[in-house]
Amino acid sequence: MSTPISPLAPTSYPDMPPIAGVRLATAAAGIRYKGRTDVLLALLDPGTAVAGVLTKSKCPSAPVEWCQENLPGGQARALVVNSGNANAFTGKTGRAATAFTAKLASRAVGCKPGDIFLASTGVIGEPLNANAFDGVLDRMVGEAKDDLWLDAAKAIMTTDTFPKVATAQAKIGKSLVTINGIAKGAGMIAPDMATMLSFVFTDAAIAPAALRSLLREAVTDTFNAVTIDGDTSTSDTLLAFATGAAKNTPRIARAGDPKLKAFRKAFFAVLASLSEQVARDGEGARKLVEVIVEGATSKMSARRIAMSIANSPLVKTAFAGEDANWGRVVMAVGKAGEPADRDKLSIWFGGIRVAHKGARDPAYDEAEVSAVMKKPEITLKVALGLGKGRDRVLTCDLTKEYVAINGDYRS
Amino acid sequence: MSTPISPLAPTSYPDMPPIAGVRLATAAAGIRYKGRTDVLLALLDPGTAVAGVLTKSKCPSAPVEWCQENLPGGQARALVVNSGNANAFTGKTGRAATAFTAKLASRAVGCKPGDIFLASTGVIGEPLNANAFDGVLDRMVGEAKDDLWLDAAKAIMTTDTFPKVATAQAKIGKSLVTINGIAKGAGMIAPDMATMLSFVFTDAAIAPAALRSLLREAVTDTFNAVTIDGDTSTSDTLLAFATGAAKNTPRIARAGDPKLKAFRKAFFAVLASLSEQVARDGEGARKLVEVIVEGATSKMSARRIAMSIANSPLVKTAFAGEDANWGRVVMAVGKAGEPADRDKLSIWFGGIRVAHKGARDPAYDEAEVSAVMKKPEITLKVALGLGKGRDRVLTCDLTKEYVAINGDYRS
Repeated sequence: MSTPISPLAPTSYPDMPPIAGVRLATAAAGIRYKGRTDVLLALLDPGTAVAGVLTKSKCPSAPVEWCQENLPGGQARALVVNSGNANAFTGKTGRAATAFTAKLASRAVGCKPGDIFLASTGVIGEPLNANAFDGVLDRMVGEAKDDLWLDAAKAIMTTDTFPKVATAQAKIGKSLVTINGIAKGAGMIAPDMATMLSFVFTDAAIAPAALRSLLREAVTDTFNAVTIDGDTSTSDTLLAFATGAAKNTPRIARAGDPKLKAFRKAFFAVLASLSEQVARDGEGARKLVEVIVEGATSKMSARRIAMSIANSPLVKTAFAGEDANWGRVVMAVGKAGEPADRDKLSIWFGGIRVAHKGARDPAYDEAEVSAVMKKPEITLKVALGLGKGRDRVLTCDLTKEYVAINGDYRS
Repeated sequence: MSTPISPLAPTSYPDMPPIAGVRLATAAAGIRYKGRTDVLLALLDPGTAVAGVLTKSKCPSAPVEWCQENLPGGQARALVVNSGNANAFTGKTGRAATAFTAKLASRAVGCKPGDIFLASTGVIGEPLNANAFDGVLDRMVGEAKDDLWLDAAKAIMTTDTFPKVATAQAKIGKSLVTINGIAKGAGMIAPDMATMLSFVFTDAAIAPAALRSLLREAVTDTFNAVTIDGDTSTSDTLLAFATGAAKNTPRIARAGDPKLKAFRKAFFAVLASLSEQVARDGEGARKLVEVIVEGATSKMSARRIAMSIANSPLVKTAFAGEDANWGRVVMAVGKAGEPADRDKLSIWFGGIRVAHKGARDPAYDEAEVSAVMKKPEITLKVALGLGKGRDRVLTCDLTKEYVAINGDYRS
């Protein structure tokens, strides 16, 4: 936890404007950490729509199951998040803990337990003592304010080295609406929502079904296109809340509504920023690596090849060693199981072509490539020369620090 | 290359008896390494049958393609292996280098180029200078002896920290036959034959088709049940040679022949020993980890879950940290995508049950489990409680040394 801040961290945080209909509070309930906040409460005005994307793990955490049960209702009045304990693989005790937390929160807020959304992150398999929330949540309801976005992002951190926030504004009709998001990483990050929590709030008025469509659409090329270590967590949760409290904002029923054009772009930008920050804060990361695959037989095929490259320990350690080892890239293309023709393959590091048509590019300059590999942000492009499928994923390098962080995390 | 010997290395090597019909020679051709051998020649008597299992990579190396083309013939007169350069992703130059090597060897041996089998291991993407073999192979033919098995295993090493040999004997009818094998690892090891070369020789008389069946049968639960880092190499090659030169040995035409009962067991034992040695010499490995999954809906499902566990960086770093982090095991079960019911799951480290029916086993003693985790060899068992599917894979931990070895390998 005393890891220094990632060298890939943003140098400043954006000003996070208030979101009409959202108030925030954080508290130190002492769930696992000492001397820091570990609970976030987001209070939502009545009528807030909610949509979510949850982990595909077959062994999800108790709070993920709670969200699964309550998302179909489409309505939310509060979000309670704790860090330090994931309440995952905790059996009946775990289910009881989520039910008890929701009950405490619903009592404090004055709503049904089913309107409370829950997320937990941290160690797996330890019972979560939900009594820690007793009294704390009541006090938080009284203290909640509209300008605590950075504090909110800090309260949900685990091995993250910096808080992750993003904001954007867009017009829906004549109404200016705001979108604020927060997220936490930082290990166990893989497609299909790894150990990653993210919460996005807007004062736009968007019906639950439309919000769900927008969210699923945006997640494909943002959070689902980021991988740190290929490990999918039991706890991944991305929730979007639309309070509808912006002044005179039109009520949107369908995701296809043309009035959403600018909003859709802004919403995507917030998710893209948050997910990129997750990659920038990958455990032990020293390099942000953008993997672009083009010329594949389809976008899906390009995605699979990009993921095979981005998850390869040998490729990732080569980046850590600042070594433009395109031979390992070929290996990772080859093992993806997707159509590929070795003799049509070209590979670029930072815009410099190092391999062309199945062999080393005789023209490339080793010194120039070495300079690229020393940079903190590197683009690796692979052209397959087969079709028009293109995709992009973000990852980071695999360093000794990753091993150190994860070899010592629990003990 | 100056890595100390793996703490998991065997403490002694078996005496490797001669195999009638096989003679070996090694040489230092200076392909990449200085002051060590890097070429192996195995001379095989006329009539030797050959079978092979090769990498499934879509971007295989030139020697793999050469073997693919020549295996259907079923006959071999020599094997030439070099270490230091994998001749992979080397385009037309690479194909020319294999053809030239085979030509040189066939001339030295006195056979068709198609009877020469080739394998290369080492750096990818660098052209292999096959002129290095000129003269060397002729000399090797003259020097070949029947007692150089350990030298043969040494000549094919790359980042291996110890040579890998195994031997067994069995009766076919009244004839005692011998099986000797050698192998090299050590990174890029994953199912479906990763960067792994292994060559197994016997003086039994087994027809090519029968040898192929025996090999495919044995590889499933040996080499294909070992994973170091999930990275499948472009060069994986396992070849089996049967000279038929044992005295009065019956000629076997079918793998189903009941006379093969003892041989089949011995053959499996040699492959099992070699593949376990590969896991013991995984790059940076400090722990040999046996992952057993039982109670799955099928053997295939158990295999997929076992592989998901064995390839998880978070599970592997937990072993490196001597941490019985069964929460990460649950995560890896959950992400496998196979049928699993969290609330029926039980997990054992070294025979101690730490989780039972979806929660921490209240009875387990932390100190006892800590003692298990300090051992160099650890069995992790997962019971799913769904069916009768069972499988086992071998892996190792993920250490800072793995990152160091692979961050510095090429440069």
